Amino acid sequence: MEAIEKPRKDQGAELVQTAIPKMGPSDVLIKIKATSICGTDVHIYDWTDWARNRMHPPTIFGHECCGDIVEAGKSVESVSVGDFVSTETHLADWTCEQCKTGHAHICENLKLIGVDRPGVFAEYAAVPATSVWINDPKMSPIVATTQEPLGNAIHTVFKGDVVGKTVGVFGLGPIGICAALVCMHAGAESVIAVETIDYRIKLAKKLGVEITINALDSDPVKEISSLTGGRGIDVLLEMSGSERALLSGLGALRPGGRASILGLYSEPVRLDVNELIVTKDLTVHGVYGRIMWDTWYKVASLLRSKAIDLERLVTHQFQGLSKFEEAMMTMKSRQSGKIVLFP
Amino acid sequence: MEAIEKPRKDQGAELVQTAIPKMGPSDVLIKIKATSICGTDVHIYDWTDWARNRMHPPTIFGHECCGDIVEAGKSVESVSVGDFVSTETHLADWTCEQCKTGHAHICENLKLIGVDRPGVFAEYAAVPATSVWINDPKMSPIVATTQEPLGNAIHTVFKGDVVGKTVGVFGLGPIGICAALVCMHAGAESVIAVETIDYRIKLAKKLGVEITINALDSDPVKEISSLTGGRGIDVLLEMSGSERALLSGLGALRPGGRASILGLYSEPVRLDVNELIVTKDLTVHGVYGRIMWDTWYKVASLLRSKAIDLERLVTHQFQGLSKFEEAMMTMKSRQSGKIVLFP
Amino acid sequence: MEAIEKPRKDQGAELVQTAIPKMGPSDVLIKIKATSICGTDVHIYDWTDWARNRMHPPTIFGHECCGDIVEAGKSVESVSVGDFVSTETHLADWTCEQCKTGHAHICENLKLIGVDRPGVFAEYAAVPATSVWINDPKMSPIVATTQEPLGNAIHTVFKGDVVGKTVGVFGLGPIGICAALVCMHAGAESVIAVETIDYRIKLAKKLGVEITINALDSDPVKEISSLTGGRGIDVLLEMSGSERALLSGLGALRPGGRASILGLYSEPVRLDVNELIVTKDLTVHGVYGRIMWDTWYKVASLLRSKAIDLERLVTHQFQGLSKFEEAMMTMKSRQSGKIVLFP
Amino acid sequence: MEAIEKPRKDQGAELVQTAIPKMGPSDVLIKIKATSICGTDVHIYDWTDWARNRMHPPTIFGHECCGDIVEAGKSVESVSVGDFVSTETHLADWTCEQCKTGHAHICENLKLIGVDRPGVFAEYAAVPATSVWINDPKMSPIVATTQEPLGNAIHTVFKGDVVGKTVGVFGLGPIGICAALVCMHAGAESVIAVETIDYRIKLAKKLGVEITINALDSDPVKEISSLTGGRGIDVLLEMSGSERALLSGLGALRPGGRASILGLYSEPVRLDVNELIVTKDLTVHGVYGRIMWDTWYKVASLLRSKAIDLERLVTHQFQGLSKFEEAMMTMKSRQSGKIVLFP
Repeated sequence: MEAIEKPRKDQGAELVQTAIPKMGPSDVLIKIKATSICGTDVHIYDWTDWARNRMHPPTIFGHECCGDIVEAGKSVESVSVGDFVSTETHLADWTCEQCKTGHAHICENLKLIGVDRPGVFAEYAAVPATSVWINDPKMSPIVATTQEPLGNAIHTVFKGDVVGKTVGVFGLGPIGICAALVCMHAGAESVIAVETIDYRIKLAKKLGVEITINALDSDPVKEISSLTGGRGIDVLLEMSGSERALLSGLGALRPGGRASILGLYSEPVRLDVNELIVTKDLTVHGVYGRIMWDTWYKVASLLRSKAIDLERLVTHQFQGLSKFEEAMMTMKSRQSGKIVLFP
Repeated sequence: MEAIEKPRKDQGAELVQTAIPKMGPSDVLIKIKATSICGTDVHIYDWTDWARNRMHPPTIFGHECCGDIVEAGKSVESVSVGDFVSTETHLADWTCEQCKTGHAHICENLKLIGVDRPGVFAEYAAVPATSVWINDPKMSPIVATTQEPLGNAIHTVFKGDVVGKTVGVFGLGPIGICAALVCMHAGAESVIAVETIDYRIKLAKKLGVEITINALDSDPVKEISSLTGGRGIDVLLEMSGSERALLSGLGALRPGGRASILGLYSEPVRLDVNELIVTKDLTVHGVYGRIMWDTWYKVASLLRSKAIDLERLVTHQFQGLSKFEEAMMTMKSRQSGKIVLFP
Repeated sequence: MEAIEKPRKDQGAELVQTAIPKMGPSDVLIKIKATSICGTDVHIYDWTDWARNRMHPPTIFGHECCGDIVEAGKSVESVSVGDFVSTETHLADWTCEQCKTGHAHICENLKLIGVDRPGVFAEYAAVPATSVWINDPKMSPIVATTQEPLGNAIHTVFKGDVVGKTVGVFGLGPIGICAALVCMHAGAESVIAVETIDYRIKLAKKLGVEITINALDSDPVKEISSLTGGRGIDVLLEMSGSERALLSGLGALRPGGRASILGLYSEPVRLDVNELIVTKDLTVHGVYGRIMWDTWYKVASLLRSKAIDLERLVTHQFQGLSKFEEAMMTMKSRQSGKIVLFP
Repeated sequence: MEAIEKPRKDQGAELVQTAIPKMGPSDVLIKIKATSICGTDVHIYDWTDWARNRMHPPTIFGHECCGDIVEAGKSVESVSVGDFVSTETHLADWTCEQCKTGHAHICENLKLIGVDRPGVFAEYAAVPATSVWINDPKMSPIVATTQEPLGNAIHTVFKGDVVGKTVGVFGLGPIGICAALVCMHAGAESVIAVETIDYRIKLAKKLGVEITINALDSDPVKEISSLTGGRGIDVLLEMSGSERALLSGLGALRPGGRASILGLYSEPVRLDVNELIVTKDLTVHGVYGRIMWDTWYKVASLLRSKAIDLERLVTHQFQGLSKFEEAMMTMKSRQSGKIVLFP
């Protein structure tokens, strides 16, 4: 089969011909219908510090996908050949204390698809049956593969309540746009989105995000203060991974507010903890993965409710894994929404 | 009357003779029975950056006290002459959105006794009637004046649940010791306390804190890992205001854990947000003041339950405000628990 | 001034000429612009058991209103002459433990406007300044007077979370219709409304409630089971005060679901606690009044967000208190939405 | 092997000789070390309505036990031969929405050990590997078998918070005694226990429950009012299954309080919903089973903390299943705490 591999400890990736993956007794084999590119894949491609410290090439990478189960291991009972599924990237061991108390997304022995074991930029992928989510068979593959980033958005938004609140979303990548739209669907009074890349601001506006600030043009703290009559935001969703955004976002928060941070930062952040957290009596959440399986049920429900049209979030589609390089360059240009490949 | 004044924009304080304070129609006049020294008072005495940016001397300072109401303004109905009261330092306006939704401790127009208006290192103090808490008349003045720091501890501890949990308390000043004892009373499975000053460790042990680590002798992250079989702490209560303690405490936390931060830091903290917060899916709270009046009700209840013997937390008592300088030097030596003055 | 009085311990009410009410130092005098009729007023008019046990006529009744403050007592600081306000019916003492811990709506010494002290079916009403809510001066009086029932709906809906949930609303009186629309605004996946009166079902549909069941035509438990593929509702909002509705609603709930009960029942309910509550591991809330002032802030926010058009909920308007009898008959016919009188 | 069977649709039980149970590929075979009798077993023995409607004899009954795993099915990976385990009675399917969102104890296809499949009053029992909890090998079998009722108590108590609260525990059967002691351990200010059987009151007192009311001697509502200075209880834990107790308990609750109901009632309860629930703005929980596996982790932690000495709760021990009839008669006499059999 064809697959995209991280061949060695260096920049880049390669299209390879390789064997269809072998399956264990509790795995399923998925014939991939669609796969999408995540920021993590860019880290792997670029061989950043994070990738260096974590991966052991050669590895097929990629972790967002959907497809049909074409084979199931002997002891698999929860899903069947023919099921149309998406994968959950976070592989839990299901036996540790975290897993047994509802926190499988932060399993003590967490493994990641496409990082710690072979990924889904391929024609076929083998994954544990416990890590797949069964989709409505009529769901479009484009929607099915992009549910996972919507899941990140939903996990972040619903760390708390947004009804009647003013929410600041910092970072309008695909997850940030999802988060903004989910907040609007869930009764937020207003959503103020902050970004520095015009392409993303335009895309967000097209999908329905009304109030946006380009942080290169004006200071978001001042703008937010002016937009809210000096009141500030009730909720910060930090999805940019930019230190400046984090500091602005915390600065724009009302005392007693909530900050939920999904962004990952290129280095440690210098933070005035007194001013930005303690004397504001804030609640700050780190957000990782998606709650298994609450978040996925919420994804399914919000899609049924048409809270967000994931097809419109996908700005680029590529036919064939041979187009991977082009897709990755598009991704790295930051002039895109979500990018989907059809192997 | 006698009072301790911050006379000018400089280090130090002075014993002065001054008029008994004037009262507004909604104020009460308290004849102070006992007053205690808080870390904030040291900042004022030392004229640190925080004090410089906030205060406008000359001002009588001090904010922890108890005493009898000897006069009540015309429109005061909630308390009466003769009531034995303690003061809540955070003066709320009771009209802003924060105040009207249960967050008076982070009032939009918050003022502090002994900082923004005359304090309680004095024979008499005038405060708004809405900022006093009526004590059991039989309560010892030593206990009555030290309820406020116990309130800080309680507000911090009960930002979440501690039953059956392993709690790390970083910083064994008086509030840290209170927090450790409150956790033990409220069903924590174990409390691991971290401090660098031997005096404090000894005092904590004397009051019943069993497991202590001197962070100068060994790395708290490793010690905690060893004490918990590699599991880490479920809850971090950061009460030291030391960057190193904050980083160690977050490092020692389990994924999915909770960090409640009461400490104030001498400068911005350099924080690996990815590693210490985001990928751990943590919840972090800033903690400020005491919830009015839930925290005070809990203070009263926990004192009735003998969760902590505040008298034993008080290691030094001074008779007369003329002993203030000596009391402050004792405080600054860091060889003390709580210090009480009787004007 | 003109007012509607409950003159004696008997059925009915009377239009009377009476003095403008006297004010205490902490009261305000409101010139009523609009007032609306609530179910409680029907109890008073009909002199039901509840009324008999509670009221001591003669009393001016009515408790929903809006108007301008025309006079303020000496010690009033929180509002001013000229403010356009609505009243909160629940008069708290603001000094008891409930009031001081955020539960003023269940004050230990709760009094009700229009029941325990003179009400607002009048040209003027005097109420404590602590019980008024300042409106946007541009708000329509129709909206301003009907905020309180919207507040009941909001308090009930937000006893829990509704995002992505299937909600059953039993009872489509004005509050039930508000609740259904608020759920839809706040991201419920679907709302299934149950009622027995066709007029109300039609009104609800006109305002946007899509799925309705007439419980006289079919069994709501079966209908709901069929509509939800056997899954049941996640949330029950019981707003009818009918025993049968309560039992059906609990029967239609999924295990682990939530029931929030605002309805008041004409007599004790016979309840299979095992089947309907215990083995379902349910959470059941009694709901009373509105949280002061969180609920009112949420009302204001949801109105700004156009979650509901209260003007369309008002089906009948009457000019002059002399039309009270006609208004009350309309109310009792159960062929109405909300009814507003302009004194 | 020997086992206690419900042989037919009638009162009573029989000691039988039967084959060691057959195991499926995901089951384990436990050699029972100790088993204990629960109220449900009395229902089965007495062949009450509940049993009639649910069971299909012949069935070995009993569901509380501990023992060693002596054989494990082919696909079992989570436990091993030699593990010392206790069983969780609630058998979940682990595939339904309830199970996948943290509510396995109310699985959509819930089965009960000893009711829907063969139980543990036997020398051996086969149960799904997913339904066992691994104990510390040094735990006493008496403690290990009685963890499940402690789990019920813990699930009930921690439906909310008890720190600094006044808790009323109605019903001092073994679970009620556990609940009272757990509340005291977790920082409740006081626990008031209500019961009608002197034996149980004495046992509770012996284990450390200080304040008890015999509801045959005095009205618990009045007694509680007097004990709390008219304030009432903050939390009701209803563990008696008596209608009168439920009504008294709700009557004794403060407005805004919490009632968690574990008791099962012999018939529907006639409840003044207005007075007892709605106008009090109460929160009421039904409580079923134990949360898998949060509750079990809490059980283990509280046992490590010596919150309760389960050995002292066991008042009667019987050697050999041949003593079952005697054990059951002791249980039915209501003159016992927990009863343990050693097969």
